[in-house]
Amino acid sequence: MAPGSSNEKNTDDGQASKENFIHLCNPHLEKMKEDILYHFALGTGTHDFPSLFGDVKFVCVGGSPSRMKAFIAYIAEELGLGTPGCDYPNICAGTDRYAMYKVGPVLSVSHGMGIPSISIMLHELIKLLYHAKCSDITIIRIGTSGGIGLKPGSVVITRQSVDATFKPQLEQVVLGRTVIRSTNLDEQLAKDLMQCSKEIGQFNTVIGNTMCTLDFYEGQGRLDGAICLYDEEEKLQYLKNAYESGVRNIEMESSVFAAMCNLSGLKAAVVCVTLLNRLEGDQISSPHDVLVEYQKRPQKLVGYFIKKSLGKV
Amino acid sequence: MAPGSSNEKNTDDGQASKENFIHLCNPHLEKMKEDILYHFALGTGTHDFPSLFGDVKFVCVGGSPSRMKAFIAYIAEELGLGTPGCDYPNICAGTDRYAMYKVGPVLSVSHGMGIPSISIMLHELIKLLYHAKCSDITIIRIGTSGGIGLKPGSVVITRQSVDATFKPQLEQVVLGRTVIRSTNLDEQLAKDLMQCSKEIGQFNTVIGNTMCTLDFYEGQGRLDGAICLYDEEEKLQYLKNAYESGVRNIEMESSVFAAMCNLSGLKAAVVCVTLLNRLEGDQISSPHDVLVEYQKRPQKLVGYFIKKSLGKV
Repeated sequence: MAPGSSNEKNTDDGQASKENFIHLCNPHLEKMKEDILYHFALGTGTHDFPSLFGDVKFVCVGGSPSRMKAFIAYIAEELGLGTPGCDYPNICAGTDRYAMYKVGPVLSVSHGMGIPSISIMLHELIKLLYHAKCSDITIIRIGTSGGIGLKPGSVVITRQSVDATFKPQLEQVVLGRTVIRSTNLDEQLAKDLMQCSKEIGQFNTVIGNTMCTLDFYEGQGRLDGAICLYDEEEKLQYLKNAYESGVRNIEMESSVFAAMCNLSGLKAAVVCVTLLNRLEGDQISSPHDVLVEYQKRPQKLVGYFIKKSLGKV
Repeated sequence: MAPGSSNEKNTDDGQASKENFIHLCNPHLEKMKEDILYHFALGTGTHDFPSLFGDVKFVCVGGSPSRMKAFIAYIAEELGLGTPGCDYPNICAGTDRYAMYKVGPVLSVSHGMGIPSISIMLHELIKLLYHAKCSDITIIRIGTSGGIGLKPGSVVITRQSVDATFKPQLEQVVLGRTVIRSTNLDEQLAKDLMQCSKEIGQFNTVIGNTMCTLDFYEGQGRLDGAICLYDEEEKLQYLKNAYESGVRNIEMESSVFAAMCNLSGLKAAVVCVTLLNRLEGDQISSPHDVLVEYQKRPQKLVGYFIKKSLGKV
């Protein structure tokens, strides 16, 4: 049986259980004596991955390192695994490319901004989980986004991640040739998260499509970048077309996140708060404390989901 | 005369001088009362840009925040503007998206990894320089890269930034439509930097093409990512084709850097050290202290160039 595929094994109590291991789509890795995860400053020759990460079941990723640090403190308290005010060490302290924190079964990792930045992180994260022999992983991106036709502060659980032409796919260039990958996410996980939001009942949450772009300004039809060669009418028409196709928010990482998790057999979801309604403007001008509270909403929702999954609600 | 175009003015000594202001390709900005540079946590309503940044003449950008902090300390000492061990405050302390430092006429800004990440930063940086009424700016990306056919530690000054099919262009998607932009860089500036490297005489430096990709693993033909669906022969053929087309190194930001600086009238160069020779492997496995020394080489070269430009060599 190939490593990473589903595996029947006998558990201690004699029952057969089905565990989902990471599906590694790379036959070359088997031949490597050591694997250096350069952008994490971790390596199989220097770190014991199974003992460091073997018990991970939930991975939460987000752009900002400080937000991912705040999340680990929050989830630790929620799960009764931490003490208030306790400081969590950055597992990737040897580099400033990404930050990583862990408490119990939860790993929290930053990924920077944009498809290339999250893609580097995911390559190394998927290898980390594989080397650590993790199984039954749920991975959720908790992020920020621009909303379309939603009240600012609304949370969007992504049904499909679509590109700038509203297609549910990712074009990637591999050895100079374009390949198209599916950006499907786990339908049941999205529904479970929606149910959690209803149970919390604290903020507006919808399931909708998420448009993933390569640029924040021109790529999202903003009028306030250093370069803008279209007018307001063209911009609004584009955003309305997006809305009509089912898009409810715009961000910059979901498509490659969905594509890579798909290929690696990871159950994945994207949960982003909307910081503004793009039909009403481009600048993120809400007061700092309002934005801070908005950014906590995906954390609250995913925190509740993890607690519930662990039978602690 | 349009703002941002060249402007004849009388200087104090009565001579006419030609100053190059930022060329802002966005007519909408004139109508905005206030401009919030969200990812810098700076705004024209809260910060006095001309007094904070009006004297900037050199902007150095690089992926890692700690490297850009190290650079400002280095250049301060080189220019006799700092005291050893002095701490430079992060101008963007209100956010963890980017870090920014300034000493005298030099601004040092981090941009994260990948085209989308540097593109957000450049939109806001170009607007910052415009609002500050800066003129005669030289902007240089100092980064790390994978080399092709070069001894590790060699420095590449980019002649042209090319895409994954070796074309000197950037495809961008604007309102769902693909636009093609030129990735030309300043030829004279590249030559001046090459001359500086000869004068320093401390490391191998070449002028060559730089391939800019959207992914570090599959996009650069690596065999050690979480996903790899090609074999070693296909990989080596691709890298050899790149070499034959004039590519000497591969990184992930130069194309949009060149395209945006071009459109905004900024004199721009890309100077990257190569951390490994990709014809010999994929993993960055040199000892930490060797890599740290390599990463200082673009800083040394650009530091020397700035000193020379200011008549301090």
